[in-house]
Amino acid sequence: MSRVVDFCQNCLHAFLDYETAKTLVIPNLRVGCIFRFIQILILLYVVGYICVVRKSYQENDSVISTVTTKVKGFAFTNTSDMDARLWDVADYVIPPQGDDSFFVLTNVVITPNQTQSRCPALPNPKTTCMRDSDCIKGLTDPRGNGVQTGQCVQFSTNMKTCEVFSWCPLEIDAQPPKSAILAAAENFTVLIKNSIMYPKFNFHRRNILPHIGSSYLKSCEYDQETDPECPIFQLKYMVSEAGEDFQDMAVKGGVLGIFIDWSCNLDWPQGNKCHPKYTFRRMDNKNPLNDVATGLNFRFAKYYQTPDGKETRTLIKAYGIRFNVIVFGTAGKFGIVPTIINLAAALALLSLVPPVTDWVMLTCMRKRDLYKRHKVSLLLEDTDAESVLSMGPTYGTQK
Amino acid sequence: MSRVVDFCQNCLHAFLDYETAKTLVIPNLRVGCIFRFIQILILLYVVGYICVVRKSYQENDSVISTVTTKVKGFAFTNTSDMDARLWDVADYVIPPQGDDSFFVLTNVVITPNQTQSRCPALPNPKTTCMRDSDCIKGLTDPRGNGVQTGQCVQFSTNMKTCEVFSWCPLEIDAQPPKSAILAAAENFTVLIKNSIMYPKFNFHRRNILPHIGSSYLKSCEYDQETDPECPIFQLKYMVSEAGEDFQDMAVKGGVLGIFIDWSCNLDWPQGNKCHPKYTFRRMDNKNPLNDVATGLNFRFAKYYQTPDGKETRTLIKAYGIRFNVIVFGTAGKFGIVPTIINLAAALALLSLVPPVTDWVMLTCMRKRDLYKRHKVSLLLEDTDAESVLSMGPTYGTQK
Amino acid sequence: MSRVVDFCQNCLHAFLDYETAKTLVIPNLRVGCIFRFIQILILLYVVGYICVVRKSYQENDSVISTVTTKVKGFAFTNTSDMDARLWDVADYVIPPQGDDSFFVLTNVVITPNQTQSRCPALPNPKTTCMRDSDCIKGLTDPRGNGVQTGQCVQFSTNMKTCEVFSWCPLEIDAQPPKSAILAAAENFTVLIKNSIMYPKFNFHRRNILPHIGSSYLKSCEYDQETDPECPIFQLKYMVSEAGEDFQDMAVKGGVLGIFIDWSCNLDWPQGNKCHPKYTFRRMDNKNPLNDVATGLNFRFAKYYQTPDGKETRTLIKAYGIRFNVIVFGTAGKFGIVPTIINLAAALALLSLVPPVTDWVMLTCMRKRDLYKRHKVSLLLEDTDAESVLSMGPTYGTQK
Repeated sequence: MSRVVDFCQNCLHAFLDYETAKTLVIPNLRVGCIFRFIQILILLYVVGYICVVRKSYQENDSVISTVTTKVKGFAFTNTSDMDARLWDVADYVIPPQGDDSFFVLTNVVITPNQTQSRCPALPNPKTTCMRDSDCIKGLTDPRGNGVQTGQCVQFSTNMKTCEVFSWCPLEIDAQPPKSAILAAAENFTVLIKNSIMYPKFNFHRRNILPHIGSSYLKSCEYDQETDPECPIFQLKYMVSEAGEDFQDMAVKGGVLGIFIDWSCNLDWPQGNKCHPKYTFRRMDNKNPLNDVATGLNFRFAKYYQTPDGKETRTLIKAYGIRFNVIVFGTAGKFGIVPTIINLAAALALLSLVPPVTDWVMLTCMRKRDLYKRHKVSLLLEDTDAESVLSMGPTYGTQK
Repeated sequence: MSRVVDFCQNCLHAFLDYETAKTLVIPNLRVGCIFRFIQILILLYVVGYICVVRKSYQENDSVISTVTTKVKGFAFTNTSDMDARLWDVADYVIPPQGDDSFFVLTNVVITPNQTQSRCPALPNPKTTCMRDSDCIKGLTDPRGNGVQTGQCVQFSTNMKTCEVFSWCPLEIDAQPPKSAILAAAENFTVLIKNSIMYPKFNFHRRNILPHIGSSYLKSCEYDQETDPECPIFQLKYMVSEAGEDFQDMAVKGGVLGIFIDWSCNLDWPQGNKCHPKYTFRRMDNKNPLNDVATGLNFRFAKYYQTPDGKETRTLIKAYGIRFNVIVFGTAGKFGIVPTIINLAAALALLSLVPPVTDWVMLTCMRKRDLYKRHKVSLLLEDTDAESVLSMGPTYGTQK
Repeated sequence: MSRVVDFCQNCLHAFLDYETAKTLVIPNLRVGCIFRFIQILILLYVVGYICVVRKSYQENDSVISTVTTKVKGFAFTNTSDMDARLWDVADYVIPPQGDDSFFVLTNVVITPNQTQSRCPALPNPKTTCMRDSDCIKGLTDPRGNGVQTGQCVQFSTNMKTCEVFSWCPLEIDAQPPKSAILAAAENFTVLIKNSIMYPKFNFHRRNILPHIGSSYLKSCEYDQETDPECPIFQLKYMVSEAGEDFQDMAVKGGVLGIFIDWSCNLDWPQGNKCHPKYTFRRMDNKNPLNDVATGLNFRFAKYYQTPDGKETRTLIKAYGIRFNVIVFGTAGKFGIVPTIINLAAALALLSLVPPVTDWVMLTCMRKRDLYKRHKVSLLLEDTDAESVLSMGPTYGTQK
C-alpha cells in the first residue's frame, strides 16, 4: 500500500515540482548594455516594422466584386466613304451590355452588301493567275479569301486573280483610316458602378461612397486631384492618365486597364479608410516590334434578308479601345492567429539574445576568465567532481 | 606535432562537449501548479483554437472555375403598346451565350423604325426655341439628342424645339412601364453548371455531385431546405432569397449575385466535405438616395435594311436583372510548412512560461528570499566570489 | 537625498545587470553527438526543405491579367439542308469580340423565317389532342412551346396537336447533325495575347516574350515540344492535348479550359524564370450519366424585318466549343516578414534540442546519476539547503 502511495507521490512531484535554471548576475555595465541594446533592436523591428509598417498581425481576404458600366455620348461623322451619320451608344458600344469589360468603337472598315457568291480573290502571289488552269477548283487556303472555283477572272483592268466562293464583295483589307472616324469618342464618359465584398469579414462597399450626394454625381467628372471620388470618367482623361494619346490609340485600337484598388485596413471603425483608388494603364503592347496584330480589332456582321429571302450582311471590322475594369485589393483585419505567430516569432528571436551576449561576454570582455569560472563548470567524469573551466575560448553557451 | 593534436582535441571538445544549464528543483506545489497551468492554457489554445477551429496547419489554395448557364422559360405579353408577343430565350437572354454572367430582360422601352434623319429635339430648357436663330447649326450637346441643324420646328401643337440630326424618331426617355412587361420572368429557371479546380492540390469537382442521378436533375428545383444540391434555380426564388421582391426589381432592373462557396477541407478522404453552398445577394444599390441611374438598363439596337438599302433600326432600352455567378472559396489541406510554423509558434510561446513563473516565484511567494538565494547568485567582480543575492525584488529571471 | 540615489542605482542595476544561466559542461562524446545530430537535422530541414524546396522566405502575390483572342480560318459547308455556304470569323465566333472566353460554332440547327404566329405544338403526351376541347385556351406549359390558342389542329397527316401562339414554325428540337457541320473548325487557329501583372511587385509581362521576333510569330504554331512559346494555337491541337477528340466534341459542344500558369520566382534577375506554361483540360462533363444537357449549346436569333414591317427571325441553336482562357499563378519574391517568421520557427525548433538531449542524458546514459547530481539540485525548503537530487528518473529538464 505504501508503495502505491510512494509512487503516486513521486509522480506528483515529478509533475508539479518546479525546475528552474540557476543563474548568475553579472553587474557589468557593458555586458548589460549589449544585452539590452540587442533586445531593444529586436523589439523595435517587431513593433515598428512588422506591426506598424507591414501589419502582419492582420488576417487577409481577397476582394470579390461586380461592375456595371454605362457609356454616354454620341458622335457625328461625315466622311467621303459614308453618309452623314450620328453614332450613339447602341452603335458604338459592343457588346451593348456594360459589364466589367466594354469596347468603344473608334475606327471602322465597313464592307456592305456581302452575299454568299463568287468574286475575284484579292491579289497576292498565290491568287494571281493568267488562265483557268492556274486555279485549282476547291482549294481553300487558310490565309486566303474563300474556296476557289477554278476560274481565273478579271480583278482590275490589268490583273486577273482566281475566282473564289465567299462572302462577296471581299473586304479590302487595307489599313484602317489614318485618323480615327470616331475621334469624338474622346469626350464620351463612362459611369462605373462597382460593388465589392470581403466575404471573410462580411464587409460590403460600393465605389459610390455613402457621403456622396446625388446632385454631385449628376455633374461630376473624375479627376485625380480635384474629384478623386467621382465614378464618372472621361475616356480621354483615362487614356492620358495611362500615358497615351487618345487619337493615336483610337486609330488601331488597344486595351486599357482601369484598375480599382480596394486595399483596406478594416481595423478602422466602419472601414473609414476603405476607399477605391483608380489607376489606368495600357494593357496591350503598342510597340509593333515583336508583335502580330497590334492594336485591337475584330470583325462582326449585321445580317439582313432581302425581300426575296436572300441573306446579305454588312461586315464591320471594328477598331476600338477595350476598357477592362480590374478590381483588386486585399483587406486586412486583426486576426488572432497571425498575431500569435508574429508574437511567437519575436519571442524566438529574443531567445537568441542571451547566447549572443554570453558569447560576447566570454570572448571579448577583459574579465572573461572570471565570468567563465563562475558561469561554466566542467564535469570531471572520472573524479565525480566539478572543476572550474580552463579550456579554450570557444566554450560559449551553446544554443 | 602534439600541438596540432592538442588543437584538434580542443576543437572536438568545443564542438562535442555538451553544455547544459544547472537547475534547481523547487518542490513547491503552488509554483508547480502555476507553471503547469500556464503551460496547459497555451497548449489548449494551440490545439483547440489554432488546430481545430482555424485549421492553421493547412496550406491554402484559391478556386479556379468555369460556369455555364442555361435559362429556360417563355413569357407571353399583350400590352396596348405592342402586339401580342411570345418571348423565348433567344429574345430575352442578352447576350445569348450563357457564361458566368447572364442578363434576363424584364422590362423594355422600344423605339422602332429609327433612321438617320432629322426630327425635333426632346423639349428641355436648352432645346425649346421660338425661331431658327435660337438654334445653332452644328451644336452637339453631350447630354442632347444629336447635332442641331439650325432650324426651329414644331415638337407638339404648342411647343417648338430645335431640329436635330440623329436616329429619328427619338426615344421618348420616359420611365419604363410601371409594372414589368415580362413579369412572367419570375418563373424562368436557370441551370448552372460549375466546374472548379484547386490547382495546387490537383482537385477537380463539379456542382453536379457524383451521387446525383439524371432523373432527379430533370425535375428538381433548388431549395435551401429541401433540395440544396439541385443546380436548377427559379429566378424568383433566388431574388427572394436575396431579400428582394422580384416584381419590384424587374421594373428598373438590378444585379443579383449568385455566390457559390467552395470552401473545402481536403483532408477528408475524397473531398467528402467539399460541397458547393449557394447564397444570393443583391449587388447594386436599390436605394436611389445617393445614386445615379439606379437599376440596370442598357440600349441596344436591331438593325434592318429596307429594300432600297436604307438602314433602319429598332432601339431597345432593356431593363432587366443581371445574374452574376461568383465562385469563391479556399481549400485547405495539411501542409508541412504551416504546421511547423504553428508548432514553432507554440514552442516559442511555451518558452515564455518559465520566466513568468520565475517572476511570480521570486516576487509573490512567501519564501521568495529563500528561492532567490538558491537560484540567483551575484558575482562580486572585485573579490572574485559569488554572493547570495540580496538586492531588490526586481531581480526576476531575464528573458 | 541618498535614498533617491540608492533607488536610482538599484533601478539601474535591475535594468543593466546581466543575468546568465549557470551551465555545466559534460565532456561526453555520445551526449554531444546526439545534441549536434538533432541540431543538424533541424537545420537541414529548415535550409533544405523550407528554403530551397518550398521557398517559404518569399512573399506572394496573385496574378492580374487581361486576355485578347483572335480566331482565324474559314469553313465551307455544302449539306443537303443548307445552300453552299462559306463561314468566316464573323459567322462562327460568338460573340465576335475576343476576350478571355470565346465560342467557336461547330454545329447548328437552323430554323428560318419564324414569325409571331400560330402553329401546331410539337407532339408529346400533353399536346396531342382529338378535338378542340382537349386544348385549354391560354395554357402556358413552361416546358411547352407557347401559349395554347384552344384549337386542335393537324400536326401531320395522322396526328393532331393543340395549336400554340409562338415563334412559328417551331424549332424541331431533334438532335444536332451527327457529324459536326463545321468539322473544318479543327484547323482554325487562335492568337492569344495575354498581359499579366503582379501589382505587389510592380511586375508586368506578356505571353509574347521579348526575345520572340515578329517573323517567327507570323508563321509559328504552338507545340508543347517544338514551339512552347508561340502564342498561336490550332483548335484541334488544344482539344487533343486535353485528351479529347475534336470531331466528337464538335457534335454536341463543350467547354475547354486553356490554362496559362504564370507561377514565377521573381528573385531571379529580370524575372528570367517567368514564362507562361500552357495546359489544356476539358471543363464540362462529357459523360452523360448524371448530367442534364451535356455539351454546350445556346439559342440566338437574327432578326429581320419584312418590307411591310413585320418582324421575322432565324433561330439558331448553336453547338460549339467554348474556350476559356484561365490565367493563374503566384509570384514569390524574397520578403523580410516571411523570412523572419521562418527563421524564428527554426530557432524555436532548435530550442527543443536541449530539453530532449537532457532527457536522453538523464535517463539513458550509464552515468545518468552522476550527471543528475551535478546538474540538478533539490531545494530542501525546511533546512534551507540544497541536496543532490535522488528522486526517480522522471526528473528531466522541464521545458
